Amino acid sequence: MAGSILGEIFRVSTWGESHGAGLGVVVDGCPAGISLCEEDIQDYLDRRKPGETKYATPRREGDKVTIMSGVFEGMTTGTPISMMVLNTSQKSKDYSEIAGFYRPGHADYTFDAKYGFRDYRGGGRSSGRETIGRVAAGAIAAKILEQMGIHIVTYVKQIGPCVCRDGHMRPENIEKSPLRMPDLERSVEAEDYLAEKMKEHDSVGGMIECVVCGMPAGVGEPVFGKLDALLAGNIFSIGAVKGVEIGAGFSVASKSGSENNDEFYMAADGSVKKKTNFAGGILGGISDGDDIVIRVAVKPTPSIFRTQKTVNKQGEEIAVQIKGRHDPVIMPRAVVVVEAMAALTIVDRMFVGMSSRMDKIQEFYGF
Amino acid sequence: MAGSILGEIFRVSTWGESHGAGLGVVVDGCPAGISLCEEDIQDYLDRRKPGETKYATPRREGDKVTIMSGVFEGMTTGTPISMMVLNTSQKSKDYSEIAGFYRPGHADYTFDAKYGFRDYRGGGRSSGRETIGRVAAGAIAAKILEQMGIHIVTYVKQIGPCVCRDGHMRPENIEKSPLRMPDLERSVEAEDYLAEKMKEHDSVGGMIECVVCGMPAGVGEPVFGKLDALLAGNIFSIGAVKGVEIGAGFSVASKSGSENNDEFYMAADGSVKKKTNFAGGILGGISDGDDIVIRVAVKPTPSIFRTQKTVNKQGEEIAVQIKGRHDPVIMPRAVVVVEAMAALTIVDRMFVGMSSRMDKIQEFYGF
Amino acid sequence: MAGSILGEIFRVSTWGESHGAGLGVVVDGCPAGISLCEEDIQDYLDRRKPGETKYATPRREGDKVTIMSGVFEGMTTGTPISMMVLNTSQKSKDYSEIAGFYRPGHADYTFDAKYGFRDYRGGGRSSGRETIGRVAAGAIAAKILEQMGIHIVTYVKQIGPCVCRDGHMRPENIEKSPLRMPDLERSVEAEDYLAEKMKEHDSVGGMIECVVCGMPAGVGEPVFGKLDALLAGNIFSIGAVKGVEIGAGFSVASKSGSENNDEFYMAADGSVKKKTNFAGGILGGISDGDDIVIRVAVKPTPSIFRTQKTVNKQGEEIAVQIKGRHDPVIMPRAVVVVEAMAALTIVDRMFVGMSSRMDKIQEFYGF
Amino acid sequence: MAGSILGEIFRVSTWGESHGAGLGVVVDGCPAGISLCEEDIQDYLDRRKPGETKYATPRREGDKVTIMSGVFEGMTTGTPISMMVLNTSQKSKDYSEIAGFYRPGHADYTFDAKYGFRDYRGGGRSSGRETIGRVAAGAIAAKILEQMGIHIVTYVKQIGPCVCRDGHMRPENIEKSPLRMPDLERSVEAEDYLAEKMKEHDSVGGMIECVVCGMPAGVGEPVFGKLDALLAGNIFSIGAVKGVEIGAGFSVASKSGSENNDEFYMAADGSVKKKTNFAGGILGGISDGDDIVIRVAVKPTPSIFRTQKTVNKQGEEIAVQIKGRHDPVIMPRAVVVVEAMAALTIVDRMFVGMSSRMDKIQEFYGF
Repeated sequence: MAGSILGEIFRVSTWGESHGAGLGVVVDGCPAGISLCEEDIQDYLDRRKPGETKYATPRREGDKVTIMSGVFEGMTTGTPISMMVLNTSQKSKDYSEIAGFYRPGHADYTFDAKYGFRDYRGGGRSSGRETIGRVAAGAIAAKILEQMGIHIVTYVKQIGPCVCRDGHMRPENIEKSPLRMPDLERSVEAEDYLAEKMKEHDSVGGMIECVVCGMPAGVGEPVFGKLDALLAGNIFSIGAVKGVEIGAGFSVASKSGSENNDEFYMAADGSVKKKTNFAGGILGGISDGDDIVIRVAVKPTPSIFRTQKTVNKQGEEIAVQIKGRHDPVIMPRAVVVVEAMAALTIVDRMFVGMSSRMDKIQEFYGF
Repeated sequence: MAGSILGEIFRVSTWGESHGAGLGVVVDGCPAGISLCEEDIQDYLDRRKPGETKYATPRREGDKVTIMSGVFEGMTTGTPISMMVLNTSQKSKDYSEIAGFYRPGHADYTFDAKYGFRDYRGGGRSSGRETIGRVAAGAIAAKILEQMGIHIVTYVKQIGPCVCRDGHMRPENIEKSPLRMPDLERSVEAEDYLAEKMKEHDSVGGMIECVVCGMPAGVGEPVFGKLDALLAGNIFSIGAVKGVEIGAGFSVASKSGSENNDEFYMAADGSVKKKTNFAGGILGGISDGDDIVIRVAVKPTPSIFRTQKTVNKQGEEIAVQIKGRHDPVIMPRAVVVVEAMAALTIVDRMFVGMSSRMDKIQEFYGF
Repeated sequence: MAGSILGEIFRVSTWGESHGAGLGVVVDGCPAGISLCEEDIQDYLDRRKPGETKYATPRREGDKVTIMSGVFEGMTTGTPISMMVLNTSQKSKDYSEIAGFYRPGHADYTFDAKYGFRDYRGGGRSSGRETIGRVAAGAIAAKILEQMGIHIVTYVKQIGPCVCRDGHMRPENIEKSPLRMPDLERSVEAEDYLAEKMKEHDSVGGMIECVVCGMPAGVGEPVFGKLDALLAGNIFSIGAVKGVEIGAGFSVASKSGSENNDEFYMAADGSVKKKTNFAGGILGGISDGDDIVIRVAVKPTPSIFRTQKTVNKQGEEIAVQIKGRHDPVIMPRAVVVVEAMAALTIVDRMFVGMSSRMDKIQEFYGF
Repeated sequence: MAGSILGEIFRVSTWGESHGAGLGVVVDGCPAGISLCEEDIQDYLDRRKPGETKYATPRREGDKVTIMSGVFEGMTTGTPISMMVLNTSQKSKDYSEIAGFYRPGHADYTFDAKYGFRDYRGGGRSSGRETIGRVAAGAIAAKILEQMGIHIVTYVKQIGPCVCRDGHMRPENIEKSPLRMPDLERSVEAEDYLAEKMKEHDSVGGMIECVVCGMPAGVGEPVFGKLDALLAGNIFSIGAVKGVEIGAGFSVASKSGSENNDEFYMAADGSVKKKTNFAGGILGGISDGDDIVIRVAVKPTPSIFRTQKTVNKQGEEIAVQIKGRHDPVIMPRAVVVVEAMAALTIVDRMFVGMSSRMDKIQEFYGF
């Protein structure tokens, strides 16, 4: 299976299944000279762990990360950084029942169609645990961005009918909300909504918003290497994502040009700024110096505890009830995954873009 | 500028500016043995030409394509196919006025921020004419798909407040509508809406829908090589696109799992099918054999003939009025560009996927 | 540091330093359905282990490989295969002395020049132990090739003045010779030569020959994707390699066309064959069905136990004597590394080449 | 056919057959701000043209290059640079005779084996004319290197038994010799040798040497991205090349470590230098600041005017005599092709390497 390597210069190669020996990632193309320790990665990874709350699977995943290479005396050396999380609490017997049939909304059928068979334990490679590699690599990317003054804020903007209101969201509220919704009033309503759905053995969908602050203008390449195109595609590669929009997004369909154009003006510091940000911080595929605003639609967890109709490998129509441990809502845990993909994309583009101008190249190499 | 090459096996390398000598594309990785002539490409390219209608720029672009290599005695040879369209009717003087300032909603400012200067004539590389290379390559990809029973239907689903209704769209209506809207009632309404906006010297946004019919199950790779992720990212690379969704798309945010899961059943022909298609034909990044349904938000043309505020290269705030020839609506012309990007993406994935199973590889190589 | 990922479809991502926690590789793009176990990898890896003989470093490297992912119930699943060898016997104190100066013939100076500092323990990433990842991945590639009837034979052809004679080399002798030289008479002479050099605290260079048997015709792409170009480049990436030639190699410089052309004839089985094989099994970058013959020049181990002049990080000229454990000859251990790189290259090319012809693609996808 | 795209950041995509409409190349990833005109390219291309001498084919190839995009007001804009040479003097009838059989030493058979058929006119894509795209792109790469103080000198070192002597080669002699041999005494002898072979309707092989002067230390990545590996592989992709060596090359096979190690010393300017250069300017895959020295074995032109035995497409053994116009020696024309491939490789590596160190990245982006 091709498909587990991402990036052109800052490249990550992820591996692992939900019920194999472990999961991990190799980061190739990380610059030398970054102070890095396992705690940096662990802090990031812990944000995707099922929390203490009732909305996450009760299983206790240790998910302790180990850095296997690429760091010497606390600094990245420029060599590949291999990181690994061993699977400790996965019980294969939980899942053996699903070997023979195709769970609705899952990748069971398509894996079989493609490969002829599959590792049926807990979704195997299509499990949400696959994101461990993304997040571990994203922790490094985020650290690189921080050193360049770029900071990413990501949160749950919508769960079912509950949508955070502009003007009522506070970054400091994100971690105060068990659902990572920065409008705490809406967060409470969403908790009620979720509680109801859980009682019905159902799950809920939602929307995540990701804001990249502090971007310099000029990052991204035209045509196929557009920053928005790569952000959208890479974030779309997260399981359960069904839509991505940037800036005004789908609302542009009902807007006119005079409504949607962002006028430029001169900021006090002498820089060019936009009065509005319908563009979402990217024009022609290149960052314009404004915040990059991305919204991501996440489908409700397909694992629900109701009886569902489906078929099995023998081609028989059956009714099934999925057991096991599943989150009725994945958005709060997916927040850091979206953030990681955004960070990975931006870092790669910043590295690719370093050879865009001859004058800067000469300066770099001392000519 | 990196960024003008797309694909892993079926690779396209596009070039050209709106007011340079011409535009074109090199397709590397096209199989040998496909019957191909310039007319195949021209038919496809003509779909992006400004038409006879009042909604497209009045200029007459010849846009005659020439195949420069890779075809011998009417068949592709497996060598790179170079295709070219010479610019014949571009008048640089039309655009010289915009050299000194940054048009709102355009890439003028970001190109300057990235490269230090830009080819200011008609948008240069960020012009809509850049899509000529995409469409010429897409014509070949579409032909390859047709030979495998895969057909793509693309149309304008929404312009401003006018949205085509499910059940009222007919594929045969697409070319009957001057706006390529397959719900002809809505098309007439959209014409009125557009006429009004044109009177106000304004432009309109909209939404394009693309349906891929006849896909076999099993195309796409898990993780970063997901078919939906690549479709979304590649289509997002078209200028003016601000959002992409697949299947139920953003509507999943307010759905529950029991509403959104597609149940499997056995079709009369013995194949596994889904009762609904909220997944949009892709599960876990791999095609499930159902139609792939993609929706694309397109922003209103930023070139409007109203006075707008902006800044110039000297850092002065100014008011400008853009002249020249610009489409008040680009969706009808963008339809074939979306289709081309979908075709390019799927062909590339189908080629990449040929080495997914050892039994099939052995069969292929005769062992 | 970019540079640790190889391949287009069958892609390997290696990691690890000689004195870090371990070394490993992730193989992405391995087909599903190959029977694979750790013993398959271990057998291959053991060929690069220092042997029982006096010509290898006396340290005992366990080098036990673990498969961490991608194999389920004894079969590859198509997901990334992560393999790992933990470092168990590396003693960092052995090497701390070299932190401050630049060993002649080693990469110490260039790593410092590039990265500003380096993991100085035993060469870090430039150590011969880096090849563990290559060989583990190569074991899988070799297994794939075996299933397609392709077999690779690799051996030491030359050590110092001792060159194996055509007509005196037997494949079954390779493992009988402590130096892996298939001409046993020359092997004995080489042992004497080596013994002498060891007494002088010196090391020896040599040449490795690699023969790929059973190749089908038609593998490789023209221009930059030529099979010989990729074999040469990928084998050249092994540390200590200073030259690669294919077929007649450098001897063509003094030949005429009439001497060097291989005439075609019809074999009894109806296939096209060449009377001679000066081409080395590749014409125009594409395999011609004959054996592929590659020769590789390997420089003498730069770690010698004599006093050498060099400089330190402070810019002082000094005299140094390297301690520690080093092989006076690396060719016997490098044999399997060359073989691994050949296997990786050919497998990747065979996978890339599956979409070369439209008729074969249609057959593959059932149209 | 995949395989016609090279590079990671500075990427070239070549196209064209010997007897199609033309040949060309698209350069994607060229920095903005380089002064560039068609004459820059033409001067480079003219070095691969058959000259006035008796050793090149008598046909007069105009080979006038046109820049189609990517240059505006005499400067590169950062957009793809498309360059094209139209075929003007190719006569297809010259070659139609070879459609039905396989010329010894050519790629006719392997193209048929791979693609099922081929463009038989003059070798099609496997013709020496394919190098036009490489050389046109190489001209830009060479210009970039010149602006960073890096200069490449390439010449014919050997033709048949005539080998230029160290100490007798002068760069200024290269263009004085009709064979581009910088040891003029050997050049005269080679002319005699060649004259004799031409009388016998035969062709000659030889060796090219390429020296890259002014390299900074620190260019190249470890493991698979080694500068020597990429130089070797990319130069090996030139048709007729059968071997590549760097520095001491194949002579290392008979050397000891004490003979082959280059001792470091401090130069008067405070830089670290090597007393000798057996390494050929690269240690551990990274440039060491010394000259890079590459030698390339080129096989004798397979097109000779003697009767040769071969087979035809019908599987019959036949005797053939090739007609048409062919160079009895290609080394003098191939010199610039080797140089172009070296330049393309080094530029790409210099761009990739700009993100190797965090301190330099921060400086670049102003943090």
